[in-house]
Amino acid sequence: MPLPEKQLIRRIRLLTRRWKSVGRSGLGIPHAPSRPQSSPIRKGIGDDCAVLRIPPGHEALVTTDFSLEGTHFRRQWHPPESVGHRCLARGLSDIAAMGGEPLAIFLSLALPPGLPQSWVDKFFTGLLALAGEFVANLAGGDIAESPNGVLADITLVGSAPRGTAILRSGAKPGDKVYVTGSLGGSASVLSSLLSGAAKKIRPRDHPAHFFPTPRIAVGRYLRTKKLASAMIDVSDGLSTDLHHICEESRVGARIHADRVPRAEQVSLDLALNGGEDYELLFTAPQSKQIPRRIAGVPITNIGETTSGRKIVLVKDGSRTVLPARGWEHFKH
Amino acid sequence: MPLPEKQLIRRIRLLTRRWKSVGRSGLGIPHAPSRPQSSPIRKGIGDDCAVLRIPPGHEALVTTDFSLEGTHFRRQWHPPESVGHRCLARGLSDIAAMGGEPLAIFLSLALPPGLPQSWVDKFFTGLLALAGEFVANLAGGDIAESPNGVLADITLVGSAPRGTAILRSGAKPGDKVYVTGSLGGSASVLSSLLSGAAKKIRPRDHPAHFFPTPRIAVGRYLRTKKLASAMIDVSDGLSTDLHHICEESRVGARIHADRVPRAEQVSLDLALNGGEDYELLFTAPQSKQIPRRIAGVPITNIGETTSGRKIVLVKDGSRTVLPARGWEHFKH
Repeated sequence: MPLPEKQLIRRIRLLTRRWKSVGRSGLGIPHAPSRPQSSPIRKGIGDDCAVLRIPPGHEALVTTDFSLEGTHFRRQWHPPESVGHRCLARGLSDIAAMGGEPLAIFLSLALPPGLPQSWVDKFFTGLLALAGEFVANLAGGDIAESPNGVLADITLVGSAPRGTAILRSGAKPGDKVYVTGSLGGSASVLSSLLSGAAKKIRPRDHPAHFFPTPRIAVGRYLRTKKLASAMIDVSDGLSTDLHHICEESRVGARIHADRVPRAEQVSLDLALNGGEDYELLFTAPQSKQIPRRIAGVPITNIGETTSGRKIVLVKDGSRTVLPARGWEHFKH
Repeated sequence: MPLPEKQLIRRIRLLTRRWKSVGRSGLGIPHAPSRPQSSPIRKGIGDDCAVLRIPPGHEALVTTDFSLEGTHFRRQWHPPESVGHRCLARGLSDIAAMGGEPLAIFLSLALPPGLPQSWVDKFFTGLLALAGEFVANLAGGDIAESPNGVLADITLVGSAPRGTAILRSGAKPGDKVYVTGSLGGSASVLSSLLSGAAKKIRPRDHPAHFFPTPRIAVGRYLRTKKLASAMIDVSDGLSTDLHHICEESRVGARIHADRVPRAEQVSLDLALNGGEDYELLFTAPQSKQIPRRIAGVPITNIGETTSGRKIVLVKDGSRTVLPARGWEHFKH
């Protein structure tokens, strides 16, 4: 059984304080950016609302993402540390896709009455370890009893200097299309899990699926250097997320199949349509020099935007329309 | 069945735009405060994050609250308009409890595959009608498939001028304790529902339970006049929420049973320990003159804080300890 609500909140407050002190001093945390000592969280857990200071001249960035047992994860497949990590990674990846800085984390967590408290503790270990890497802390949320399965909803609040957040809508025809890292690795693990190979898969050996790294540093670089015209994170699958950019920017695109960076032993189909990569897909004007690596992450030019509205895949010299075949809820 | 995700999001965007125009012009909306024409939502639904402008010199207030079918509502008892209204009211009430102004709403909504789209439409009708009353608009969220039941998590972003948000921790011994409106009305309806009287209850006749009014205007008045030393919303029940104030402020309290404002035909027990009142419980120094009504809502002095840490109920001349017997998840 989980602890009673009041005790559970007290425990989360304690855990949060511990991570706060580790996160701030940055002990052994490779990704920690330098950040002024003053916390943006003026009042955290323990009031009706958290009180946050958004840096002067900045706009607030806000995103929410569900992680629901049975839809986004399964307890028999995903260890609790991975569930906590992935839950937060979803939100951080959205902040990364705006070129933003994460400031504070909110977690609504509903637990079934039979869940052992040890599962809850490990969930927070995974979540807070990732939070510590990005010097973001848990500032509030909600605890409830779940009628069925573990239900988590993460809210991330971040910021970016006024007018600098990178939207999906800024691409112009003729921009180049880039993607970070490699694609399909997470979906490939999922397909192994679905085919019954869960026992053979050790989560720590497959970080792309179990412990993905949100591309905060890449997003920050692109924002500060003013390189990207539009950006999205690849959470539903490249094909679907590219459609989002094209729709919001009112452009088309031409993607070259042989340039799409695939994770090891991953088919083109999975690289194009598999989800949960948490890489960044962005466009940049031809005039901009995009480094081959940013913050250690390879950057690949996979095509260009066009003035038509079609999204085309060029493969072996022939062109076909690239449909949005990534993840969509309630696909009938 | 609900619409496929992409169409559903398109529909929500349309609904949101319609309400935005109504909300801004304030047509027929009694509660609408005057607000500068410029929306705080620079970029709403349709990007990785929403981009918000927090008013200059303000801090951001953030709260998240679950509304889970089977835990917080039942579809056979609560019409969809009420579920949407209550879902948002939970978040608005937390903003009210800080004396804050609501700025933007985020909704994570998971729907079971068999749910009719008409239910979803009515849910949004209820939610957006309440949003329009407070000139707050839906700025983003998440849509997912639910493995079981309707699952909603609401995030409210609000603001208050720097350092003016009313915390739970500011009460001093000897402050007076006040509560808005009357208590127990919502819990009384719930107890009728639990006893099988659902068919006899018409939701519109019982707004305290089905369509509660968040006390934004009262909270705003108390903040701008600097009257309250500590505040919380009565969501778990007076006894439990008073304990929260006393714990965070390190004070005790003495409550006079005969002064506790009860809803019609409600027992003292329900007024003290029933939940979901969404009234405000606050403390104020003796020196402050508290009006008998604020924004049309009666204000009642029910006791005072003390220097000890005990919370005492005075009833018929005798004193007993008042335990926190309101709602708590995972009470074993």
